[in-house]
Amino acid sequence: MSKPSNRDKILKAGMTVVLERGYMGASVRDIVQAAGVPQGSFTNHFTSKEAFAIEVLDLYYAESAEIVARSLKNPDLAPLERIRAYIRENKERLQREGVRNGCLYGNLSAEAVDHSELIRLRLAEIFAGAQDAVEDCLKAAVADGSAPADLDTARTAAFCVSALQGAILLAKVKRDTVPVDQFEQILFSSVLRG
Amino acid sequence: MSKPSNRDKILKAGMTVVLERGYMGASVRDIVQAAGVPQGSFTNHFTSKEAFAIEVLDLYYAESAEIVARSLKNPDLAPLERIRAYIRENKERLQREGVRNGCLYGNLSAEAVDHSELIRLRLAEIFAGAQDAVEDCLKAAVADGSAPADLDTARTAAFCVSALQGAILLAKVKRDTVPVDQFEQILFSSVLRG
Repeated sequence: MSKPSNRDKILKAGMTVVLERGYMGASVRDIVQAAGVPQGSFTNHFTSKEAFAIEVLDLYYAESAEIVARSLKNPDLAPLERIRAYIRENKERLQREGVRNGCLYGNLSAEAVDHSELIRLRLAEIFAGAQDAVEDCLKAAVADGSAPADLDTARTAAFCVSALQGAILLAKVKRDTVPVDQFEQILFSSVLRG
Repeated sequence: MSKPSNRDKILKAGMTVVLERGYMGASVRDIVQAAGVPQGSFTNHFTSKEAFAIEVLDLYYAESAEIVARSLKNPDLAPLERIRAYIRENKERLQREGVRNGCLYGNLSAEAVDHSELIRLRLAEIFAGAQDAVEDCLKAAVADGSAPADLDTARTAAFCVSALQGAILLAKVKRDTVPVDQFEQILFSSVLRG
């Protein structure tokens, strides 16, 4: 394997710094220190903090794509079990970080979308992609009879994405993943039972 | 009416600045400029930005209490209609601000709870209070037969609080309140129908 470039180091360490301290709370100095590279490296590789944040989002997205592949897009699971696996993967990610940090998408939604239209549009696109992946599961569940025939799959998918973000946000406040469990219970015991 | 003190001016203008720019994004300079007071006033009245943020939360809470009085605690409305009114009041607040800013509670949850244990605990307390007010409505709805007798009122109330936060977060990203409508529709057409 080739040595990671300063650019890669900045992105990888920077993602953690932005998750822990937020977009506005993470200074360029914090980021280069965490990456162990000279301060000048940042401006060599990124035209602005906004451009850096977009690339951090892309890196987080690439990591999240592995979660999606194991859950929402996992053909070995029944359609509704894919959604359950997705919620549990998100919960486990929170637990690995001591139920701190939360979700980078949610954090930037709260903090950065009024500062940067680029970030806002990228987040809207990412959430739309998640919604589509959930909706594919719901359509498959309707087709195989495991979800009600009259389920509004688009609305329910949008709801799943936003309610999961809310559950992650409350988990962060409580330092406890119980809000994610409560969302899962209500989704499966009520919303998806029709 | 007496003239507002510099302290009151800082809190009132500061609440708007924190809503618009975030906790880390709002500098003391931004806050005193918005308040039209000398820079030194801030440190005269607040021992730290954290202490200021706690008082901003109290001010936002006082304003939100009016919404709660008109909705969740409104004896002139049927129990479930109180919850519907609460969701709609939140939606209207978003609309008045061009679906920017979002909810101060959600924003600080995403951004500030890993910086300040005081803020985290205050937010946990505020969300617990909202959950209790929603649960009172749900218990009254179970009692008068407008909600299912076997409804888990504590879990459903916690879910309402977190799902509403998620809907507000997605509304902010989309600059559109449709996620709040979708949450309301699913809550009333499914979760509360049993």
